[in-house]
Amino acid sequence: MNHERKVIDFYFDFSSPYSYIASEWVEALAARHGRTVNWNAILLGATFAAAELRPPVAHPIKRDYSLLDFERSARYAGVPMVMPARFPIPTQNAARVFWWLHDRGDAQVSASAWARHGLRAYFARGVDLSNAHCLRELAIEFGLDATEVEDVWNDPDWKARLKEVNEAAIAAGVFGAPFFVIDGEPFWGHDRRLQIERWLEHGPF
Amino acid sequence: MNHERKVIDFYFDFSSPYSYIASEWVEALAARHGRTVNWNAILLGATFAAAELRPPVAHPIKRDYSLLDFERSARYAGVPMVMPARFPIPTQNAARVFWWLHDRGDAQVSASAWARHGLRAYFARGVDLSNAHCLRELAIEFGLDATEVEDVWNDPDWKARLKEVNEAAIAAGVFGAPFFVIDGEPFWGHDRRLQIERWLEHGPF
Repeated sequence: MNHERKVIDFYFDFSSPYSYIASEWVEALAARHGRTVNWNAILLGATFAAAELRPPVAHPIKRDYSLLDFERSARYAGVPMVMPARFPIPTQNAARVFWWLHDRGDAQVSASAWARHGLRAYFARGVDLSNAHCLRELAIEFGLDATEVEDVWNDPDWKARLKEVNEAAIAAGVFGAPFFVIDGEPFWGHDRRLQIERWLEHGPF
Repeated sequence: MNHERKVIDFYFDFSSPYSYIASEWVEALAARHGRTVNWNAILLGATFAAAELRPPVAHPIKRDYSLLDFERSARYAGVPMVMPARFPIPTQNAARVFWWLHDRGDAQVSASAWARHGLRAYFARGVDLSNAHCLRELAIEFGLDATEVEDVWNDPDWKARLKEVNEAAIAAGVFGAPFFVIDGEPFWGHDRRLQIERWLEHGPF
């Protein structure tokens, strides 16, 4: 079995409720099947633009359903969620910090732990990740230096890094989140969990 | 328990792959929980317009994923599907025949049986329901009089009936298909089956 087969590519946006739900089960699911998760923070704004999509809450009629379904789906999955007062929010700063941690490769302070911490902060505690003050506080709570982190999200290099990641995601067929690529097979949505489990258990179907 | 609680409102479009998948399990699911299914043929063109949505295959990037996911989801559900060469198609004629059968109330030739027959014909055998000749042949196969059926789909009264149904669906919050309303609770998508089962088994969650 080569290295490629062992990975689950997992794409998420810090402002995506279904990404949050999936982020709570993806590691355990992967572990049960001897896989590791390759976390990718992306911006849905970029993938939506490429696919000519808008957020579900930007559509009349679908908006009300989505707000109901986010929380009901979280309850069904046993994941605590309180839809934040401000939603959706721009998440580029949290995502740039993710990629900085990712590229730094510090096993003690991992990018995926930052991802889970950020998603939980926003969707379970209402911490506004788009607010610089809140994001600095969150970084401190996570054990990072607030000034260093703010320098990261303002740094043109980390802005370019995130832009590059979004372009690669779009090139890989990602148009929404959560999005999974397993052995080259794409799966979109937390509600594809059962199909993902079948793929991991028995291979292509 | 009053009559209202016993019904599952089920909205579908004859050209919706996920509606086809759901149409294959909704009756058995309802029966297991002592419910009956209230079938509603609608036009996604109308609900999409109201919700400012486009079909998934009309979006770049999402198109390729959707074509893959339709068939994979059918395989996962154990439902035979071969994506038709022409897709999506206008389905107003098949839907008008549905409502004519529905309102006629003939238990022997039920509207829901026509729905299942039409969905299977299109998605398993590639019968183009938007082609008048094919639809006449399908009606004959189903035991109907082809001329009578063609008169129905050209009749302004049945056109008005379908328009009225679409407007009522939109007013009820329907923006896509399949769409279910159970005890006033909306569920969108064949992939909400597990949440629907939980609702039917244990009530609100």
